[in-house]
Amino acid sequence: MPYIQLEEHLPGITGLLEYRKDSAQPIRDLTQYLLRGPNTLTEGERELIATVVSSGNECRFCTTAHTAAANLLLGDATTCELVKQDIDSAPVSPKMKALLHIAALVRESGKSVTAEAIANAKQHGATDLEIHDTVLIAALFCLYNRYVDGMATNMPDSIGYFDVLANRLVNHGYTRLPQGYDHLKK
Amino acid sequence: MPYIQLEEHLPGITGLLEYRKDSAQPIRDLTQYLLRGPNTLTEGERELIATVVSSGNECRFCTTAHTAAANLLLGDATTCELVKQDIDSAPVSPKMKALLHIAALVRESGKSVTAEAIANAKQHGATDLEIHDTVLIAALFCLYNRYVDGMATNMPDSIGYFDVLANRLVNHGYTRLPQGYDHLKK
Repeated sequence: MPYIQLEEHLPGITGLLEYRKDSAQPIRDLTQYLLRGPNTLTEGERELIATVVSSGNECRFCTTAHTAAANLLLGDATTCELVKQDIDSAPVSPKMKALLHIAALVRESGKSVTAEAIANAKQHGATDLEIHDTVLIAALFCLYNRYVDGMATNMPDSIGYFDVLANRLVNHGYTRLPQGYDHLKK
Repeated sequence: MPYIQLEEHLPGITGLLEYRKDSAQPIRDLTQYLLRGPNTLTEGERELIATVVSSGNECRFCTTAHTAAANLLLGDATTCELVKQDIDSAPVSPKMKALLHIAALVRESGKSVTAEAIANAKQHGATDLEIHDTVLIAALFCLYNRYVDGMATNMPDSIGYFDVLANRLVNHGYTRLPQGYDHLKK
């Protein structure tokens, strides 16, 4: 049961974004830009960053949603699971491993990020912009996870919900759905 | 020394917001709306929430900046200091104490927020919207603190910088300064 009155048919973050549309808009814009905007990191790689942070924060709604989105974008259902279990042995590039480690450190605290972790990412070819975006995406999901769990939002009734949501996130992104797409809300 | 190349004369968050203006805009918009938009919590009370979270996260730049803004808005230089030391004995209303406790829990983790902490805030007159905004402001500063410290941004050379910054935040808010206000940048 959420701590405040939210629309019952909108689980997790979706009810919060409807509750306060004026604060929702810049959150949507920031997410759309960072996760779907032009970037040398693929959309799948950026969803992995979101998932590693959400998983570390034990946010069930966000972890399930972004795992589903990552699976769809990466075209397989194992990479993301393996990344969540152990970054170092997961089937991603050395550069991505270094960036995912930075994301995991940001999750703990900004102060946990070390010069060594940054140097390691640069050594594996990460650019300043990729490092910047990794830190900001990780920080953004620290916001999301706290928002979703801090308000005690509901999980959806059916696990199939996340397949629908992932399709929406992959095909429509994080902007608000236009009129006529209301059937995709649930 | 920041981990990436930022403009040297722009310390803390200011260099990051200039580094990537497209991601900066929604961050500015969200902050402006939550901290300066119409609200039953005063601007000073909302700066206290930002300060308590930044202080708990030991983010020096954000704590100093928002303490200075809170001091200016509250009209005294002691309330914010006392709030940072101990919420319960600080000279703020019982409702604010309850909301600041929620913010401190959000800082730890979304999962740390308890039904008891929410019930306590409601019992002291906090509305659903005030609880929502407290949680979201606290989550936003968990983003800021991680962004500022995760990139190892610089502190300003002079402590007087924060008086100038606080004046800017109180009189111009969190939106980008229009042309002609560049002297306020430092």
